[in-house]
Amino acid sequence: MNTAFNLDDYIRKVPDFPNKGVLFYDITSILATPKAFRYCIDSMVDIYTDKTIDAVAAIEARGFLFAAPFADRMQIPLILIRKKGKLPGKTLSKKYQLEYADAEIEIHPDDVPSGKRVLLLDDLIATGGTLKAATELIVQSGASVPEIFGVVGLPFLNYAAVLDPVPIRTLIQYHSE
Amino acid sequence: MNTAFNLDDYIRKVPDFPNKGVLFYDITSILATPKAFRYCIDSMVDIYTDKTIDAVAAIEARGFLFAAPFADRMQIPLILIRKKGKLPGKTLSKKYQLEYADAEIEIHPDDVPSGKRVLLLDDLIATGGTLKAATELIVQSGASVPEIFGVVGLPFLNYAAVLDPVPIRTLIQYHSE
Repeated sequence: MNTAFNLDDYIRKVPDFPNKGVLFYDITSILATPKAFRYCIDSMVDIYTDKTIDAVAAIEARGFLFAAPFADRMQIPLILIRKKGKLPGKTLSKKYQLEYADAEIEIHPDDVPSGKRVLLLDDLIATGGTLKAATELIVQSGASVPEIFGVVGLPFLNYAAVLDPVPIRTLIQYHSE
Repeated sequence: MNTAFNLDDYIRKVPDFPNKGVLFYDITSILATPKAFRYCIDSMVDIYTDKTIDAVAAIEARGFLFAAPFADRMQIPLILIRKKGKLPGKTLSKKYQLEYADAEIEIHPDDVPSGKRVLLLDDLIATGGTLKAATELIVQSGASVPEIFGVVGLPFLNYAAVLDPVPIRTLIQYHSE
């Protein structure tokens, strides 16, 4: 890995998306650059390779992009957390509040390894609301969440308080809007 | 790769999902089994490693799961094809007809390498409607689609006619409902 690599160079900042006044941190520019995407996956493997992580759970849809290569490299199961109505098997679901609307996510509890440690992963951690609901689904399915990982973190949105006591790790953080 | 490996063993068949009378081929059971997921990614790399593929475009959301590790292994750009309103940059969009409703997908045309060969990928190829619209978006963005890849194919739904003349390749096919 090149230590002079600066991930910030590969994250596009889009003003007023999806709503006016919001600065959107776009990871599609990471995906468009193989060395930047490789840097992220290598970093994740470096971080977790000596930790006990038995599976990874990913939030639809951008979380899938980072969790899938990570799961393959680590040779651990990949569990999907999806919007309601997308998973075909027996599901557990959780309603939660977003800024402007209610949302509902689901998991296949039978895919969650009982009593094991599941890393929860998304591309970007903002308010933490979806990740909190996802953590509850994993715990209700019989596993634990030792840590939450995001490629990008926006700590000024106070996700740490929402997700407490689960530790959070990110590759890059932005500190104001 | 174990040649005795049978991918069918890792694809769960769910009757009456998402609608009554439909048999759903569920790939979450591949993801839950690291060796099955590894088999898929290894197979994709084996197929395309000696072909000229300059980038891969993936259909939201399950297509992301297979395209992301493939793009990383091949060290080629990954282009997202998403439902309307999800991509923050300048987009091209395409409306098309699904069985029960209209749908609209988008691409960042600036992420498509001009004049290059883009493999289009999804987890499962059924009627081919979304993939046809996606092919048009890639071509309108200035690249070509030399082939379409799906992990699972349902050729009895006649996707070959819809996607003609683009060749289609799958790892496993099912031949009746």
